[in-house]
Amino acid sequence: MDKRMATLDKMVILENGGVGTAKGFTSGGRHIGLRYKRPDLGWIVSEVPASAAGVYTTNQFKAAPLKVTQKVIQQSHQLQAVLVNSVNANSCTGEQGIANAIQTQQWAAKKLGVPDDLVAVASTGVIGVQLPMDVMEKGIEGIDSACDEATFEQAILTTDTKEKHLAVQIVIDGQPVTIGGACKGSGMIHPNMATMLGFVTTDAAIEAADLQGALKTVTDNTFNRITVDGDTSTNDMVLVLANGAAGNQPLSAAHPEWQTFLGALEYVCRSLAKMIAADGEGATKLIEVQVSGAQDHVAAEKISKAIVGSSLVKTAIFGSDANWGRIVCAIGYSGASFNPDQVSLKLGDMLLFENGMPIAFDEDEAKQYLEQDSIVIKASVGSGDGFAVAWGCDLTYNYVKINASYRS
Amino acid sequence: MDKRMATLDKMVILENGGVGTAKGFTSGGRHIGLRYKRPDLGWIVSEVPASAAGVYTTNQFKAAPLKVTQKVIQQSHQLQAVLVNSVNANSCTGEQGIANAIQTQQWAAKKLGVPDDLVAVASTGVIGVQLPMDVMEKGIEGIDSACDEATFEQAILTTDTKEKHLAVQIVIDGQPVTIGGACKGSGMIHPNMATMLGFVTTDAAIEAADLQGALKTVTDNTFNRITVDGDTSTNDMVLVLANGAAGNQPLSAAHPEWQTFLGALEYVCRSLAKMIAADGEGATKLIEVQVSGAQDHVAAEKISKAIVGSSLVKTAIFGSDANWGRIVCAIGYSGASFNPDQVSLKLGDMLLFENGMPIAFDEDEAKQYLEQDSIVIKASVGSGDGFAVAWGCDLTYNYVKINASYRS
Repeated sequence: MDKRMATLDKMVILENGGVGTAKGFTSGGRHIGLRYKRPDLGWIVSEVPASAAGVYTTNQFKAAPLKVTQKVIQQSHQLQAVLVNSVNANSCTGEQGIANAIQTQQWAAKKLGVPDDLVAVASTGVIGVQLPMDVMEKGIEGIDSACDEATFEQAILTTDTKEKHLAVQIVIDGQPVTIGGACKGSGMIHPNMATMLGFVTTDAAIEAADLQGALKTVTDNTFNRITVDGDTSTNDMVLVLANGAAGNQPLSAAHPEWQTFLGALEYVCRSLAKMIAADGEGATKLIEVQVSGAQDHVAAEKISKAIVGSSLVKTAIFGSDANWGRIVCAIGYSGASFNPDQVSLKLGDMLLFENGMPIAFDEDEAKQYLEQDSIVIKASVGSGDGFAVAWGCDLTYNYVKINASYRS
Repeated sequence: MDKRMATLDKMVILENGGVGTAKGFTSGGRHIGLRYKRPDLGWIVSEVPASAAGVYTTNQFKAAPLKVTQKVIQQSHQLQAVLVNSVNANSCTGEQGIANAIQTQQWAAKKLGVPDDLVAVASTGVIGVQLPMDVMEKGIEGIDSACDEATFEQAILTTDTKEKHLAVQIVIDGQPVTIGGACKGSGMIHPNMATMLGFVTTDAAIEAADLQGALKTVTDNTFNRITVDGDTSTNDMVLVLANGAAGNQPLSAAHPEWQTFLGALEYVCRSLAKMIAADGEGATKLIEVQVSGAQDHVAAEKISKAIVGSSLVKTAIFGSDANWGRIVCAIGYSGASFNPDQVSLKLGDMLLFENGMPIAFDEDEAKQYLEQDSIVIKASVGSGDGFAVAWGCDLTYNYVKINASYRS
């Protein structure tokens, strides 16, 4: 990770960038009436067919649009458009759900002027309700990229409180290459393969197989390292489209600037993932957990996820209570092996626990630190090389409020 | 399980029974000043040395008293007394913590007139603070079983809102045999080996090795099937003492009434476990999840625990919202393999989902059902023989409130 990041000295973050920023891509959103007022349909279009890669939920109940999109990418390895609706997940909807997903794919292809088999569809919202096809048909028909009433980034949100997007620019073969992305996700978020909807577009030239490899690599360190509530959704998916408009030599592991591309892609995915964690349902604070000294990266990952997933750690941080015993406890049940006598803990830069024993610390200073909106917990668990970072959020009254009344 | 339960036709539940009910046991509690007002020290004594068995937390940070007690049972296979303090967990307290646990063991042995090496010690409360030894010494010195000011069952509680105890009587070899128990546990509860403090006493005659086997068997179906928040504590332990005062022939797998004993022990442990789940921190409802038709019991157990552990299922039940999509979602990420098209779901006796598809149901009736204080979710996931039951509770504002301000 560090090596890749080091290649990014010259990476530029583009102001207000998103999924429509890379050359040859446009995107938009509109309100079609799936819900009362807010935008609920989004689309992305590439001028030319783009190399495509995807990662999908590991949940055994896979939503209809996810199955349809997975098939498109497996067969054509390309995409030219993406259609996303919020409000309704089209999940647990049987054969009718699949037929509906394919129908919306066809309507979108026709309207956007691209082949059927190059359109991905994605849905997010309530499980177990069929899509209202009259609303979808009219809504897709009304797409007019010349006068978008909303952004793609707005249209894909459900319980999210913020739009989540960014774009960066690097230079490859002397050409500026842009990578932009957008995502949604606030509840039902847990690190287990693409835990939300994420869309990344780039004008880089790269073959689909290399793009798939790059996406898989960065997903493990980014989207798969966030948790809000431990629930893995039926609709989770991250798609990347690369349309080659930047004019660089095709990227692959053999390309001298491959690490630069991977680093920038990882930066985009990590930034999007952290935006999801920070905007977790009801969250008031982003929690970053850094684990070092573990036997190996797998052990470090287990420990980081146990800490960031602990309801007791999450509530303590909500209450600005430096209750380090709960962090230690989570390390202990993480399933990773380590020597308890070599465990040390920091909150930010404040040492709370060293070599298995409590350290006297200034409670007021700790409380002040915990009242910030971004908290870093550092756990050193031995002298190994294993290192991992995971992100999550606090558990608050509002998480309960949102989820005790989501459907009704 | 059913076979064992069937042997219990003649089992009698003793009114207001507890850990001091079986012949030859006494128990009590008092307030010694570890906290402001409520009882905080409890003890159990047997007239004669009792066969002893224990199961312990799998957390790698094990509290000092747990280590001391585990050693006692490994070495002597007997116990004659148990000393428990609440408020302070004596966990993550290093060598000093071990020395303190041994010191309290010795004080208790002297006061109660039993050998040092037959005293178990247990602690529950805040992690990382040394026991106030002056308070402990005076408190133990003041034990007077002739005039208990409180019960053992009261003294061991922390954030619990209710005492948890019962006793049953069966007949073995024509002799009445009593099994009584008490436990505590409300937060940091997760099914992973003895997830709380539990104490069971019986006047049955049984060798320690057979008792250990019996305890292990029933723990897997009872205490290891409850969850409140997914956190496994450093102090979890269940102890069973059997002093032989009932005068039956020693029990073992070869004894004709072995299943009767196992069934009664399982009944006691299951009842205690359910009391913990129902009194989970902030809980308003007990949730029982029954899974049938799985490939095997392990798969059924995974699914039952995934459902009962899901924050989204727990908040939906708090809100009396029949949001079955979240139950289906939890089945999907449980890690057990099954055929999504064979999954059916009931809330009580109301069918919500059949063979992978939603069923129209009466929302008002479902809401009415969910407003009760005990909810049963039944998931049938195929045609296998795998069956499991797990218990948990809803996730409420009060869980967050209690845990955002526990330490301070």
